[in-house]
Amino acid sequence: MARKNKPAKTAPAKPRTPAPAAKPWEHAKSGEGSASDPLAARFVESLSYDRRLYKHDIAGSIVHARMLNVVGLIKPKELKEIERGLSEIGKEIEAAGADYGAAWPGWKVELEDVHMCIEAALIEKIGDAGRKLHTGRSRNDQVAADLMFWIRDSIWGLGKKFSPLFRALFTLAERDGGIVMPAYTHLQRAQPIVVGGELIAWAQAFSRSLDRFDALYELLEFPLGSGAIAGSSLGIDRKETAWFAERANLLDDFDKPDLTRSSIDGTASRDMACDFLYALAMTAMTLSRWAEQWIIYASTEFSFITLDNRYTTGSSMMPQKRNPDMLELIRGRCGNVYGHLVALLTILKGLPIGYNRDLQEDKRHVFAAYDIVSDSIEMAARIVATTKFNEAKIAQGLDRGFLDATSLAEYLVTKGVPFRTAHQVVGALVRSCESRGYHKLGQLTLDDFNAACAAASQPKVCANDVYDWLGPENVVKRYRTYGNAGVSGFAEQLKAWKERLK
Amino acid sequence: MARKNKPAKTAPAKPRTPAPAAKPWEHAKSGEGSASDPLAARFVESLSYDRRLYKHDIAGSIVHARMLNVVGLIKPKELKEIERGLSEIGKEIEAAGADYGAAWPGWKVELEDVHMCIEAALIEKIGDAGRKLHTGRSRNDQVAADLMFWIRDSIWGLGKKFSPLFRALFTLAERDGGIVMPAYTHLQRAQPIVVGGELIAWAQAFSRSLDRFDALYELLEFPLGSGAIAGSSLGIDRKETAWFAERANLLDDFDKPDLTRSSIDGTASRDMACDFLYALAMTAMTLSRWAEQWIIYASTEFSFITLDNRYTTGSSMMPQKRNPDMLELIRGRCGNVYGHLVALLTILKGLPIGYNRDLQEDKRHVFAAYDIVSDSIEMAARIVATTKFNEAKIAQGLDRGFLDATSLAEYLVTKGVPFRTAHQVVGALVRSCESRGYHKLGQLTLDDFNAACAAASQPKVCANDVYDWLGPENVVKRYRTYGNAGVSGFAEQLKAWKERLK
Amino acid sequence: MARKNKPAKTAPAKPRTPAPAAKPWEHAKSGEGSASDPLAARFVESLSYDRRLYKHDIAGSIVHARMLNVVGLIKPKELKEIERGLSEIGKEIEAAGADYGAAWPGWKVELEDVHMCIEAALIEKIGDAGRKLHTGRSRNDQVAADLMFWIRDSIWGLGKKFSPLFRALFTLAERDGGIVMPAYTHLQRAQPIVVGGELIAWAQAFSRSLDRFDALYELLEFPLGSGAIAGSSLGIDRKETAWFAERANLLDDFDKPDLTRSSIDGTASRDMACDFLYALAMTAMTLSRWAEQWIIYASTEFSFITLDNRYTTGSSMMPQKRNPDMLELIRGRCGNVYGHLVALLTILKGLPIGYNRDLQEDKRHVFAAYDIVSDSIEMAARIVATTKFNEAKIAQGLDRGFLDATSLAEYLVTKGVPFRTAHQVVGALVRSCESRGYHKLGQLTLDDFNAACAAASQPKVCANDVYDWLGPENVVKRYRTYGNAGVSGFAEQLKAWKERLK
Amino acid sequence: MARKNKPAKTAPAKPRTPAPAAKPWEHAKSGEGSASDPLAARFVESLSYDRRLYKHDIAGSIVHARMLNVVGLIKPKELKEIERGLSEIGKEIEAAGADYGAAWPGWKVELEDVHMCIEAALIEKIGDAGRKLHTGRSRNDQVAADLMFWIRDSIWGLGKKFSPLFRALFTLAERDGGIVMPAYTHLQRAQPIVVGGELIAWAQAFSRSLDRFDALYELLEFPLGSGAIAGSSLGIDRKETAWFAERANLLDDFDKPDLTRSSIDGTASRDMACDFLYALAMTAMTLSRWAEQWIIYASTEFSFITLDNRYTTGSSMMPQKRNPDMLELIRGRCGNVYGHLVALLTILKGLPIGYNRDLQEDKRHVFAAYDIVSDSIEMAARIVATTKFNEAKIAQGLDRGFLDATSLAEYLVTKGVPFRTAHQVVGALVRSCESRGYHKLGQLTLDDFNAACAAASQPKVCANDVYDWLGPENVVKRYRTYGNAGVSGFAEQLKAWKERLK
Repeated sequence: MARKNKPAKTAPAKPRTPAPAAKPWEHAKSGEGSASDPLAARFVESLSYDRRLYKHDIAGSIVHARMLNVVGLIKPKELKEIERGLSEIGKEIEAAGADYGAAWPGWKVELEDVHMCIEAALIEKIGDAGRKLHTGRSRNDQVAADLMFWIRDSIWGLGKKFSPLFRALFTLAERDGGIVMPAYTHLQRAQPIVVGGELIAWAQAFSRSLDRFDALYELLEFPLGSGAIAGSSLGIDRKETAWFAERANLLDDFDKPDLTRSSIDGTASRDMACDFLYALAMTAMTLSRWAEQWIIYASTEFSFITLDNRYTTGSSMMPQKRNPDMLELIRGRCGNVYGHLVALLTILKGLPIGYNRDLQEDKRHVFAAYDIVSDSIEMAARIVATTKFNEAKIAQGLDRGFLDATSLAEYLVTKGVPFRTAHQVVGALVRSCESRGYHKLGQLTLDDFNAACAAASQPKVCANDVYDWLGPENVVKRYRTYGNAGVSGFAEQLKAWKERLK
Repeated sequence: MARKNKPAKTAPAKPRTPAPAAKPWEHAKSGEGSASDPLAARFVESLSYDRRLYKHDIAGSIVHARMLNVVGLIKPKELKEIERGLSEIGKEIEAAGADYGAAWPGWKVELEDVHMCIEAALIEKIGDAGRKLHTGRSRNDQVAADLMFWIRDSIWGLGKKFSPLFRALFTLAERDGGIVMPAYTHLQRAQPIVVGGELIAWAQAFSRSLDRFDALYELLEFPLGSGAIAGSSLGIDRKETAWFAERANLLDDFDKPDLTRSSIDGTASRDMACDFLYALAMTAMTLSRWAEQWIIYASTEFSFITLDNRYTTGSSMMPQKRNPDMLELIRGRCGNVYGHLVALLTILKGLPIGYNRDLQEDKRHVFAAYDIVSDSIEMAARIVATTKFNEAKIAQGLDRGFLDATSLAEYLVTKGVPFRTAHQVVGALVRSCESRGYHKLGQLTLDDFNAACAAASQPKVCANDVYDWLGPENVVKRYRTYGNAGVSGFAEQLKAWKERLK
Repeated sequence: MARKNKPAKTAPAKPRTPAPAAKPWEHAKSGEGSASDPLAARFVESLSYDRRLYKHDIAGSIVHARMLNVVGLIKPKELKEIERGLSEIGKEIEAAGADYGAAWPGWKVELEDVHMCIEAALIEKIGDAGRKLHTGRSRNDQVAADLMFWIRDSIWGLGKKFSPLFRALFTLAERDGGIVMPAYTHLQRAQPIVVGGELIAWAQAFSRSLDRFDALYELLEFPLGSGAIAGSSLGIDRKETAWFAERANLLDDFDKPDLTRSSIDGTASRDMACDFLYALAMTAMTLSRWAEQWIIYASTEFSFITLDNRYTTGSSMMPQKRNPDMLELIRGRCGNVYGHLVALLTILKGLPIGYNRDLQEDKRHVFAAYDIVSDSIEMAARIVATTKFNEAKIAQGLDRGFLDATSLAEYLVTKGVPFRTAHQVVGALVRSCESRGYHKLGQLTLDDFNAACAAASQPKVCANDVYDWLGPENVVKRYRTYGNAGVSGFAEQLKAWKERLK
Repeated sequence: MARKNKPAKTAPAKPRTPAPAAKPWEHAKSGEGSASDPLAARFVESLSYDRRLYKHDIAGSIVHARMLNVVGLIKPKELKEIERGLSEIGKEIEAAGADYGAAWPGWKVELEDVHMCIEAALIEKIGDAGRKLHTGRSRNDQVAADLMFWIRDSIWGLGKKFSPLFRALFTLAERDGGIVMPAYTHLQRAQPIVVGGELIAWAQAFSRSLDRFDALYELLEFPLGSGAIAGSSLGIDRKETAWFAERANLLDDFDKPDLTRSSIDGTASRDMACDFLYALAMTAMTLSRWAEQWIIYASTEFSFITLDNRYTTGSSMMPQKRNPDMLELIRGRCGNVYGHLVALLTILKGLPIGYNRDLQEDKRHVFAAYDIVSDSIEMAARIVATTKFNEAKIAQGLDRGFLDATSLAEYLVTKGVPFRTAHQVVGALVRSCESRGYHKLGQLTLDDFNAACAAASQPKVCANDVYDWLGPENVVKRYRTYGNAGVSGFAEQLKAWKERLK
């Protein structure tokens, strides 16, 4: 233990009651020890993952102590000692390096969790003032508050992670956005669009993810001061704590998040963790759809995009391969995030109210899902930033699939043909092309068009302007509806996004 | 088909083009027919469940037609015919009775879905004007809009379902809320609370569910006008449609929900269905926790509550049984709702953008999950409204479990003992009681208290007022923190809730 | 009610105690009635879906009655009456038509479930002998046994459903199996195979599904005779019941399934339902992978296969579309099946032992998941049977992707080059081709090959026979390992499968 | 890197081609480097968790090399070098300590995974012979084989983990098994049983878990030799490899597991991982049910059991608490295992055939779920081994709940009363007791019994022997059916289990 190596000069001048030999709820002499079986100690500990909360735990303890001081439960001098002690501990952990200060000697697995380790270290450091820190507080409200702080910060952090992704999408859109390409429904060629139209679609989908995270702020509630389950008979002032928390950038607003209104619910609920996991799962889902789309686009058969070598890998056996592994992992890890959501939902199902130890598992899922999604967003940004759309390859196949069939039907509508009839007329024309070996509707003559219309009791509706509605290049310029995936829709949305990103 | 039985007098006076013999995308003569295998027809149809959308589909078609008229794509006379035709169809379906007009002859499974059946019936009824309804529209945006309308209404409906539950909780709280009872963490006796404290906790948890539904309004986006995937080259005015939709009570606000900004994303996304399913899952989860708690309370061993006979059932073999089946089903059906959420999340995982037929399954899950949660909320309200807390039974066991131990520690804190030390002192006192066969801390003498304190270097801190902090009745009056589960917290929250419910 | 229409002559000759007015556990006079709230009745009933068990319920009751007769708890005459009555009821339900005799007047929702409805109808029909049927039995063991019978039959039925799928795969393999095509890893072109090699792969995957179902037989246990939870003090002989059940084709073997060895576990467990759902989920997963693969193959860009029109559908807006909807629904419904599995797993999580009403939901999931998978297998068989591989289209692109790179590396290995070195050499050669604009390794000269080898310190290893290892047509003939996806592996496995299918 | 510190004497005597500077598929000179972005390297690596496979990877490589030697693809001398090199590497990793030799310098994250690290270390150690190891092998079949070896060993290991649990259950059953206790359905008192009856139930449930694992052996298939996807054109003899694998205790039987019959399916399938996860999930589910039951039994209100202090923990705020944390964590972690199952199922949904990088995530879930379940079984064994059933507490409440009601009905059956009538008679008697304030049916007189029978037209059926059927002590002795939870069933099953455990 590093403790032993401390130079003598830091030893306290006055005698102190001995440091806790074990968990605070154990009598030193009792000997029997709860969870004293080594397997039990390992089974019950959460320190291996919850020490990730240390900054928020320390900051939360400091605001709690400030409140204790204001209401007279600790003295100004004790507050100072607590602040100094906690601050030192924070720096020690920081200095202890990777994996949330894994090497810090204060992490003692037999103390179970981050809260008890830090409190024990504080008591060892400053004595009785440290023993007062837990006044009117339980780990039950403490961990709920710590997790709330962490989630709030992470929502904010995710917001920042999205920015490079949006920027990459729009940079790509500015460069390659005008390329005409087919859009797919049912993975079958549907209508022509511009590349930018699809990029805007992804931006919209990711942007809705961001909105979903933003909406979480509104649902956060501040539980500190709820105690173990029933509150406290001491003069704990929760508004005061919240006021200090806001000053310490742990909360956004004095009133938002609200104070939890029930000490029971405040310690028993993990709704915020579920909400966060769900928002992460939806982001992972959107990412998985984008990844799937681009994996298909990157296939030899499509060849719509070329991924940068930095984001592909090779094969141990096949020398020629360049595989889109990053995209595949983004797609696959969606499963991991779903798993974390299902795990927490399962844990909560049928659980009685009040704190139950099952809740301890929440952080495992929140942290892991966050890491996956955070990394995946970052990776997605880099892939987008380095990908090229292959105009030539896309153009090669553009005349396949009668992408202008709907446009032709709409042309007929402008000539007064009811849409349902127009749809049938065009269907017949497509079939006619196929039987004649034509690839394009544009290969038909005006007579062909009018004959088909006449067969549906719509004589002489087509004129030479029909050809202005045919061919992908014409079609993408014709879309007029708000949000369309053609030239006008893309331009309008790109402009709006640029302003939004500023 | 009932169609055949129609009396001659309703036959149209003027000749019309023949009614569609099959799906609109089939040529009458082609013969080959898509999905013409009977298994395929059954496999692909969604009519058996999506006819539930008929009201929203009709209303949505009417607002679409109004917009078409405004922008000149149909004539006022055609609009009138469409409105009359759709209105008649709505009444026919309504009249066709249970299960969303299951007996209506217009439901033709070979037309696959609610949209095509209603359009076909309209064309049969009014001819060419009906053929114009689908102008600038695809089933892809139509179904997305219909579902949005339905979800919006259902959120609103759920809000109303919660009211009786809240009222029942507060009525019960007003009658039985003052009863002193133990609160549990880890299903072990923790601290004394009042019954009302726990009822407020459930109200808070359910209220957060409601907040979650409310937050969904903000995330809804209006997709109508997106077409199949790319928008339309016709002069469809989506804002106009939204304006009419608002007038028709299909949307809340002209700007909210926003128009979807990408026709691709608007037809490919089922985020709103996921969001709704997730909010339902969280409600089901909360209900399952409450049900579990009350099942335990209703056991012979606890006997905290008595359920009304209307909400229990008997055994086919054991004559004496009265089982809390309704609570068990509420708990169990949480699993069903989770299943629906997982199903839709799975469906969306890795799905390319654009409409894919997989999306058709969304409604199955949305409808089923809604029905379960809606019924469960209603059932919960009735159970709460008819349940009694058994004061006598609860009181019998109140002296077990040293519920006042934390209160005693807090007393010591008021005398200057650091909380962590106080916690150890009380731990020793509890152990001392146990070894002496005492049930209550109140059986200890002042000397006992002071001896234990002295052993922790805290001499002479206890006075006779220590007994005012002991015993559940004393403790519940002492809680002071905001949101506490004792007398003061309960009173404050009940008052706040009453005002909120007004 | 049909009851009213019964002719007088069927009225019993001797007076009987009145038929039960309500559930057997209700006293006619008590008035208070359990679950008497109409919402409660609807909430608690399972009749709407469990009447699907009626055949197995009746058959199970008959074997139970036969055992009761053997051990002397009912008389031979009573057994006859019971057999006759149940047999009549079975026919009545059969005659009542679709949806498991939904129109049968004996289905009374206030009796909750299939078991009570049939027992009540029996009592009404035959009087006191009917009242003896439930001797030594509870719904708890009865429903567990009924479900076991149903699952056993369904496993058997699924086995038969797979046959047409296997046959279709092998018929297709015999016709198109020799076509050379690229195989993909990471959706990137990997190595050449023959179409039959991939078809064998799917057959293997589906065959493993079948093996998984077969393995379930071993895990089935027969619970009848477990009573409500503790067994019975009457002389119920469970082996005798099993003997009769085997004779009635309800069980496979006198000893298999074993009798459950614990009456508590036998009534509380739903393991068999989980196991069945899991096996269904794995089948759905395999189907979803196959569907995805073929959706990609059916895209314009790949054009590897052409689906029959019977298994595609059109678009309401785009006249030219032929979408692979059946494949998409097979893929999407995998989500539904996962949802059912998750639902039941959730229901069981943390449920105390003994029957809990939550278990009632099991059948909902088992039935729905079975229907989906059963239909999907059937649909898959039809799609496979009508699909064509497009040899010309596949051949067109065969020279892309350097599919013979691994073969070349293996050639080098035969010349003594360590594989890892060979891999690097070929990597360099592929890059060389790319920089020179060559599409094929075969365009390189012998000097090119030897130069690359020499650069890796492997001089003069290539001879003219190197060209025999290049080109997809050569490569597929060269695979030698057991189970390879080329010519020899396909031939061997097809032969083995043919013998297996006989 | 430790490499640098190697003493000169271990340097190879003869010059070797340089060690690979990077992944084998990278040209040293190419510079561009795949996945060369540091985020990409971190994103794509699996080394952090798959190094856990190192023993199986090494053993698998050795048997592969032995086969290569037999078929002449490497020389005996090369085989020796490979065996020596791999064996040394194994020892080095072993010696590198915790977390699967985390400190071993050969773990290079830029090499992505355990396979490449070990191969690279081998090449560095022995040169060209090492470069031959990957002959006819791909990571795709290698990882599938490694995982199969690992799962097979883990199934075997789990079997051993269950033994202490069974032993603890039976030791407890032998000591406390005879105590009469209530059994519960719907958490309501149902019938009396003996404690041993419930312990046997848990043993049965866990034993079925074990059977499920055993059934997995049958489904395992051996994929080594499948190559990347299509097999190999080299003379790889897969049966030979399997023969060596059996000798090396990597497989159980030459024919079992079978060789995979399709190289495509063999590298694309993760069915074995799913099957294993599912079996783990079912074990976790059973554990969660047992944990829930015992948490309830350990509540103050039930007080049926006392948990040992080693397996409870205290509260940071409430000094008197002893919480059943271990049981709660066992219950809660069931959620984690479900999450892992859902994750892998999601990953596989809709994934095209052939290896996709998504599959890499499989091991994460398999390892984590295994660790949870393995630890939970061990913990369960310790808890069972140290728990006491509180005979006195259980006995106190035994007269509540009319546990003998069903027995009374069965008594009436023995007197010729139809069971359904008997059920109604006893129902009336229970109600009569309740209205008179009787706790026990035994408080009724013979006249009371006969009056109730007479009211149901069953006069004079009761005699004095009716009292022999009343009272829990009598009832538990009367159960006669196979597998009953009373005295005879418990005795029979305990005996059978003892023989099974020998």
